[in-house]
Amino acid sequence: MFLKNTWYVAATPNEIDDKPLGRTICGEAIAFYRGEANKVAAVEDFCPHRGAPLSLGYVSEGKLVCGYHGLEMGCQGKTIAMPGQRVRGFPAIKSYPVVERYGFIWVWPGDPAQADEAKIPHMDWYDNPEWAYGGGLYHIACDYRLMIDNLMDLTHETYVHATSIGQKEIDETPCKTTTEGDMVVTSRFMSGIQPPPFWKMGLRANNLADDVPVDRWQICRFTPPSHVMIEVGVAHQGHGGYDAPNDKKAYSVVVDFITPETETSIHYFWGMARKFKPEDRALTATIRDGQGKIFAEDLEMLERQQKNLLAHPERALLMLNIDAGGVQSRRVLDRLIAQEAAQPSSVLAA
Amino acid sequence: MFLKNTWYVAATPNEIDDKPLGRTICGEAIAFYRGEANKVAAVEDFCPHRGAPLSLGYVSEGKLVCGYHGLEMGCQGKTIAMPGQRVRGFPAIKSYPVVERYGFIWVWPGDPAQADEAKIPHMDWYDNPEWAYGGGLYHIACDYRLMIDNLMDLTHETYVHATSIGQKEIDETPCKTTTEGDMVVTSRFMSGIQPPPFWKMGLRANNLADDVPVDRWQICRFTPPSHVMIEVGVAHQGHGGYDAPNDKKAYSVVVDFITPETETSIHYFWGMARKFKPEDRALTATIRDGQGKIFAEDLEMLERQQKNLLAHPERALLMLNIDAGGVQSRRVLDRLIAQEAAQPSSVLAA
Amino acid sequence: MFLKNTWYVAATPNEIDDKPLGRTICGEAIAFYRGEANKVAAVEDFCPHRGAPLSLGYVSEGKLVCGYHGLEMGCQGKTIAMPGQRVRGFPAIKSYPVVERYGFIWVWPGDPAQADEAKIPHMDWYDNPEWAYGGGLYHIACDYRLMIDNLMDLTHETYVHATSIGQKEIDETPCKTTTEGDMVVTSRFMSGIQPPPFWKMGLRANNLADDVPVDRWQICRFTPPSHVMIEVGVAHQGHGGYDAPNDKKAYSVVVDFITPETETSIHYFWGMARKFKPEDRALTATIRDGQGKIFAEDLEMLERQQKNLLAHPERALLMLNIDAGGVQSRRVLDRLIAQEAAQPSSVLAA
Repeated sequence: MFLKNTWYVAATPNEIDDKPLGRTICGEAIAFYRGEANKVAAVEDFCPHRGAPLSLGYVSEGKLVCGYHGLEMGCQGKTIAMPGQRVRGFPAIKSYPVVERYGFIWVWPGDPAQADEAKIPHMDWYDNPEWAYGGGLYHIACDYRLMIDNLMDLTHETYVHATSIGQKEIDETPCKTTTEGDMVVTSRFMSGIQPPPFWKMGLRANNLADDVPVDRWQICRFTPPSHVMIEVGVAHQGHGGYDAPNDKKAYSVVVDFITPETETSIHYFWGMARKFKPEDRALTATIRDGQGKIFAEDLEMLERQQKNLLAHPERALLMLNIDAGGVQSRRVLDRLIAQEAAQPSSVLAA
Repeated sequence: MFLKNTWYVAATPNEIDDKPLGRTICGEAIAFYRGEANKVAAVEDFCPHRGAPLSLGYVSEGKLVCGYHGLEMGCQGKTIAMPGQRVRGFPAIKSYPVVERYGFIWVWPGDPAQADEAKIPHMDWYDNPEWAYGGGLYHIACDYRLMIDNLMDLTHETYVHATSIGQKEIDETPCKTTTEGDMVVTSRFMSGIQPPPFWKMGLRANNLADDVPVDRWQICRFTPPSHVMIEVGVAHQGHGGYDAPNDKKAYSVVVDFITPETETSIHYFWGMARKFKPEDRALTATIRDGQGKIFAEDLEMLERQQKNLLAHPERALLMLNIDAGGVQSRRVLDRLIAQEAAQPSSVLAA
Repeated sequence: MFLKNTWYVAATPNEIDDKPLGRTICGEAIAFYRGEANKVAAVEDFCPHRGAPLSLGYVSEGKLVCGYHGLEMGCQGKTIAMPGQRVRGFPAIKSYPVVERYGFIWVWPGDPAQADEAKIPHMDWYDNPEWAYGGGLYHIACDYRLMIDNLMDLTHETYVHATSIGQKEIDETPCKTTTEGDMVVTSRFMSGIQPPPFWKMGLRANNLADDVPVDRWQICRFTPPSHVMIEVGVAHQGHGGYDAPNDKKAYSVVVDFITPETETSIHYFWGMARKFKPEDRALTATIRDGQGKIFAEDLEMLERQQKNLLAHPERALLMLNIDAGGVQSRRVLDRLIAQEAAQPSSVLAA
């Protein structure tokens, strides 16, 4: 149950720089590669000759060459050539709309006729000297919606991430959830608290005292199909909190692209864009390492939760006020998935 | 096919001293932990909030705290508290009768209303200065009844454990099997034989010559659901065999608690209680290591036997006189399992 | 879908010299061992007593002794003895016709009454001082017919084995495929080309210049059930090519016995018999190591191709002229498998 007529993050550019990449997205096995003029391309990972995975091949002059018998596949899924063969009658394979933008490879696994690059969400922080970005990729064996739940309810930080970003005040401070069209926003503002270890580090990195009371905020924004951007930060108390000037706060955006691999597994692209000391590359590396360790703490919990849910499909789970972010995000998804199912598919027509 | 209204060994106390333990017993995923006043408790390993495994959490003031969002679970399966929530209406999860006794954690996976601590079998050797005990735990991918068969027919020692406790005379000496109520007893007495390597060690450890003829005995006692206690030992010949005085023999009880995990896997708690040199802790360690190696020799055989049986469910196996112990034990089990199935369950009623 | 009334290579003799070998052939779990007078024997890997795998046991005086309780199995599948038991009424297990010949153990997994040693294909190169042989065994998770396809279409060498035996001229030179009875032959002759690295080595080993133009040939012969023998070699140009005298060429036979384990896995016995410098044992080892590395390059491709085909059972693959060898081999197999299915089985009758 996922949207297919939408853009997902499929990979980072470095993953296809040297050789093709085979990756399953929304149940579709896809070969990603750099085709003509180094432009990213994506076709089914299935050679029409004998079914070999094309991602085991190589790229030659913009064509994806099958590593088994040398069939040359074009970016549109049509065979271009094969040694000693006339290829005109070869059956075509699927190709996928694919775009390289904002430091990611985006793929549209559904109906190509509906793909519209303008629908790729804009990333303010990309290629902007005021910002620095670092991130990584985890493979997790869970339904993508469990990760949305996770990110839209940050009370889990108190328990799962107790030694880094968790603190009791998160639990104690109610969050507020609203839905604006397809976007769901859950926000929490804490005032006059001690910063947890991760944010002490952030304050020091921005040349700010780390032992004074701060205001802290978390503003989680879900947008379909499964992106969650979270504004996070702390400011020295009494300077306006979220609206404090840059030299009184440490401010970042947690970036989460959750791409379904199958119904019960995801490619999780996580990262952090920060708006302080953007030129400090060592700080970028430190933050990425720290975030990687923090986010790894969620893996076992999510995978074991998934197993428990599969073992008890009949059980209704609780939907508390803290769960409102995930619940409302799922409502948006359910509505859009139903719309997609009702829509005549030009793929099927073709 | 296992009894559920009965006590099984679930764990050893050290396994829950530091943190909760998640373990599946008779198909039930259970979180074991030390609750109020350090008393052992057992609840379903499934948080009623979002299905996370409670065993990934921690214990705080006697409550099991879910490691995902901080729900506090009570020992009876009722949610006690959760930050910012009223928990009165939360659905309860199962709790399990559980007792710490004789150096083990015992659990009753069936109807709690029928649980009776008096039914836990008495262990003479526990906390008794005349005895010493050492043991371990193996996970084996086989039906628990294959392990009962194994232990109720010790002719396999001649083949599987040829270099330690096996000897030709086991095969050559007929065994006798009787059923007394729910207990099945298979016994074998050998006379005037050379002790095998393990018992040479036992004799020397008890300051007895290891190069003289001995009498040897094996008395296997099955009791439901799946406990097998085996009196074993050797005595210098001519001193009464099994009834010889302690300074003429080396005498032990092999302790086997076979706890079904699923239909085709077990937690196998094995050990040896010995009635000689009980104060010699180095000897306890030596025997445990030796027994661990010997019992590990059964693992591959049992797991491969299980695979063969699953591949050929239609085949009837032979039931020879040496198999009488296992055959009669299964009869007892079949009768009790049928009784249990016929019984109205207060669990279902509740 | 495989032939059962036929001889397959099951093992190499060294695999059963020290202890029994358990191996599944065409879905039959078989214990191979050296029975009376060291003669190879093969019985079901299932003890009639309690289902233990007999291959975990040992051989004593020509009998296969079960390693669990000492049942002695005879080469015909009849229990010979068991300690303390009368075995006359024990059910028999299957035994399999098995022959040691040409450096391999051959087994007939089908109807024993039809087994005829004369049907084992003759190996010219065995025990012949003009030839040397070296080989190995790979387990591959693919349908045996995918490996036949692989070996009957050597254009894949250009892509899969680009750095050793592949070269562009293979692709550029058409092959010719013919069927003679049950044998399918695909041959390709190249003329006036540069030898690829593997054959440069072969030429040097035969004291021939490796930097002159050569003629190269590949003659692939499929015979049922799944043997592919490939005559390969290079000769200095202008000396008759395939028919050149021995001191102008390097000539070998690639030996491929593809034995189905299950519908989607094989035991692949590969090797090379060479007709130059047969006395040079270091060269035999060098060639075996080289061939092992080259053939290992096919493994991932075949296993991933198999997964792709299982994911898309509905897709029809292309059958190009280069695929003719595999296509015609499958036709032979289909015809013979249909014949076998139509035939009354004396096994079933018995």
